[in-house]
Amino acid sequence: MNRRMILYMIGKIIMIEGALLTLPLCVSLLYKESCAASFLITIVLALVAGFILTRAVKPKKEVFYAKEGFVIVALGWVVMSAIGALPFTISGEIPNYVDAFFETVSGFTTTGASIVADVEAMSKGILFWRSFTHWVGGMGVLVFIMAVVPNTSDRSIHIMRAEMPGPVVGKLVPKASDTAKILYKIYIGITILEVLLLSLGGMPIFESFVHTFGTVGTGGLGVKADSIASYSPYLQWVITVFMLICGINFNLFYLLLIKRFKSVFRSEELWVYIGIVIAAIVAISINIYHMYGSLSEVIRQSAFQVASIITTTGYATTDFNLWPGFSKAILFVLMFIGGCAGSTAGGLKQSRLILLFKMIKREFRHMLHPRSVGVVKFEDKAVSDETINGVGIYLAIYCVCFFTIFLIVSLETLDFESNFSAVAACFNNIGPGFNIVGPAGNYAGYSILSKVVLSIAMLLGRLEIYPILFLLSPTTWSKNK
Amino acid sequence: MNRRMILYMIGKIIMIEGALLTLPLCVSLLYKESCAASFLITIVLALVAGFILTRAVKPKKEVFYAKEGFVIVALGWVVMSAIGALPFTISGEIPNYVDAFFETVSGFTTTGASIVADVEAMSKGILFWRSFTHWVGGMGVLVFIMAVVPNTSDRSIHIMRAEMPGPVVGKLVPKASDTAKILYKIYIGITILEVLLLSLGGMPIFESFVHTFGTVGTGGLGVKADSIASYSPYLQWVITVFMLICGINFNLFYLLLIKRFKSVFRSEELWVYIGIVIAAIVAISINIYHMYGSLSEVIRQSAFQVASIITTTGYATTDFNLWPGFSKAILFVLMFIGGCAGSTAGGLKQSRLILLFKMIKREFRHMLHPRSVGVVKFEDKAVSDETINGVGIYLAIYCVCFFTIFLIVSLETLDFESNFSAVAACFNNIGPGFNIVGPAGNYAGYSILSKVVLSIAMLLGRLEIYPILFLLSPTTWSKNK
Repeated sequence: MNRRMILYMIGKIIMIEGALLTLPLCVSLLYKESCAASFLITIVLALVAGFILTRAVKPKKEVFYAKEGFVIVALGWVVMSAIGALPFTISGEIPNYVDAFFETVSGFTTTGASIVADVEAMSKGILFWRSFTHWVGGMGVLVFIMAVVPNTSDRSIHIMRAEMPGPVVGKLVPKASDTAKILYKIYIGITILEVLLLSLGGMPIFESFVHTFGTVGTGGLGVKADSIASYSPYLQWVITVFMLICGINFNLFYLLLIKRFKSVFRSEELWVYIGIVIAAIVAISINIYHMYGSLSEVIRQSAFQVASIITTTGYATTDFNLWPGFSKAILFVLMFIGGCAGSTAGGLKQSRLILLFKMIKREFRHMLHPRSVGVVKFEDKAVSDETINGVGIYLAIYCVCFFTIFLIVSLETLDFESNFSAVAACFNNIGPGFNIVGPAGNYAGYSILSKVVLSIAMLLGRLEIYPILFLLSPTTWSKNK
Repeated sequence: MNRRMILYMIGKIIMIEGALLTLPLCVSLLYKESCAASFLITIVLALVAGFILTRAVKPKKEVFYAKEGFVIVALGWVVMSAIGALPFTISGEIPNYVDAFFETVSGFTTTGASIVADVEAMSKGILFWRSFTHWVGGMGVLVFIMAVVPNTSDRSIHIMRAEMPGPVVGKLVPKASDTAKILYKIYIGITILEVLLLSLGGMPIFESFVHTFGTVGTGGLGVKADSIASYSPYLQWVITVFMLICGINFNLFYLLLIKRFKSVFRSEELWVYIGIVIAAIVAISINIYHMYGSLSEVIRQSAFQVASIITTTGYATTDFNLWPGFSKAILFVLMFIGGCAGSTAGGLKQSRLILLFKMIKREFRHMLHPRSVGVVKFEDKAVSDETINGVGIYLAIYCVCFFTIFLIVSLETLDFESNFSAVAACFNNIGPGFNIVGPAGNYAGYSILSKVVLSIAMLLGRLEIYPILFLLSPTTWSKNK
């Protein structure tokens, strides 16, 4: 284990965070808010700590394995959240540090679960930072570092694998750092486009930025108590479309840019994703038809909520907790499915689901014809047995983590539905669940223990379990290789 | 597909059921109850139908593959339930045939979910039959046929595999039919012992039989509205112990009989099972300590409910729906874990859980040291990759079935907790869930659609999914091999 390398990278992450914090600082200065001081203090702390770590513990060797990659990513995200929580507490807007940590983890992991009861009372600088963490966490801060810091070791594909969601992470181009650059360019392009479209629709520029961060990062934190409900249908549709776009594998956008339309059109994952979205919208529309005035409103409400949940964003234009059980059950199932691999969305991911189904189908064939040898194909390529079995193992470890977290959260006096959906909503990085933690509620009622455990759940979900487990495992830290 | 063979075997199953129905007939005659006529009619129908099927469609060849095994088991269980439901409807004690079918499936699959609101008003003959189905379903009716019908083809290991729960089914002795005989002898031995111990404790002989069937089959249907709550602590402890015994792999009892104590002592699955049971009892005891008068009562209540749920029996000595959320969450998790492979209990099974954990551990090692080759051992034997991956695939298909059933049941207007726990309780063959379907409630409030779907869920759970899916799959029935 190359500990010096790990500390060095953590130092870099902290410095980058310090740099990123200048943005909310500018916002708070622009609005002449007192929270500016809290950003300034945090920036100074971050730069000093980052400077010390990057200079003092210069790594002796650049050697870098999967193990280091996992630990850097896991530790990096924890440290980033710990520092990112400081402005909330220093400014006094979230006085309790555990609450602030929960909120920051929720931001970076693009969950969007909140302990804030009165969001409209918060300052603009703090609101900006809260949503900006979605943007940073959406594509990944380490991928960002790879994109902007020159000469990053090409071993850093290990970092990318650990931070990017999905069962298989491929490089778009031979160099990992070039891949990171391309992904961030696409990401910034989508961001600018949505800000423009929201502003054109009459949304104030500050709110356009905040909601764009929440959308493209599939996060879900906003500035209003009723989330997106009070905005015009046009704005709601823009957000719906952009949520869905950001639930698609970003590789496809790259293929679009280099004009390989055929490859995009033949993406299995894309079609399954579109199919599930449409099926869910239709089923819910029929189920909630009696609750709204017109067909166009029914479809808008249904489409918005489906897009929000399947992409694990968590915005709402209505209190879906009041919907009939069938619609809630569909949303509940969508929570676990999530978006496409290589997107900013959470959940199990469409590609895992497809591989699971293909695995089941192959097992069926094998049971009927024991001598048959089945090759599983995905996106026109044969999938290795290792990858397929890896998906099964991921599901197993996912279930174990889910039930463990649920058991601990059940120490709360809240009801089964609230606790169960809270775990589902945090673990899958959605944000709102049902009942107490529904779109009209928040997570303030949970104990400190539950908030810490749910924070871990959000990190487990965003980083797809393994990095965090490696960080917590004693064998990772033992001396012998 | 050897259709003639399938029909022939179904005929045999029906005739055996006709023979088994003479037992409740005798009970109803003994108590001079009018329901005797309904048993008589059903017996005549069964014998005639069985006679026709076994004589008319004598199979041309005895060829018999896994495919036929699956279909015979699945179809056999459906037909058995359809015929077994007749006495309930003919006698008028459960007038609606769908309700009666639900109740019979619940019996044979050893689930114990009931739609009967006033069980104490039912006749003794009907109550006896209802519980006797647990006994028959516990060890499996096809295993029974193999045990009693001479010269069963030894290919019938396919049947045993399809009907016996667990990831691996081994033969105790070279011949499958001898294995079946041994298993049934042990089963009968345990049954007699429990009847004796209950009778000695002052339980009326009729009730001793009924509750023994419910215990050794890990079913859970009884004769009283409050299940086992009104019986003495001694009787409750006897049932607790026997539930736990019947959650153990029956192979271990055989090893005990042939005095291979060391093998029993070294059984990993046994120790994990004991460990989980003790941990759950301790955790719940602490959690519910304030609710009961004395420590001995706390432990008794906790032990009974834990034994009842982990062995998927479903008896209750208290309304655990009123327990605090943490205790309910533990029971909820136990619902999915279930008993040992090769027992009469349902759920995912301990051995699958162990294999899943070992699979996860191996994946961890592999991620840290990509060139390592890990061999998974279980019960001192190396487990083939096929078996391990099969466990992952089973979990995947289990989740898919679970969520599909949950979606359909969510069309009901009942609350999330009731619906979710109803699916968990039926799919894992437990019986009572939480809230409306808790120990103090029943399944009468569900619609016909839900009752049919939950019946399928019970069959899926008891037969471990594959046979029922093969039965429903069109490719199984297509002409070409």
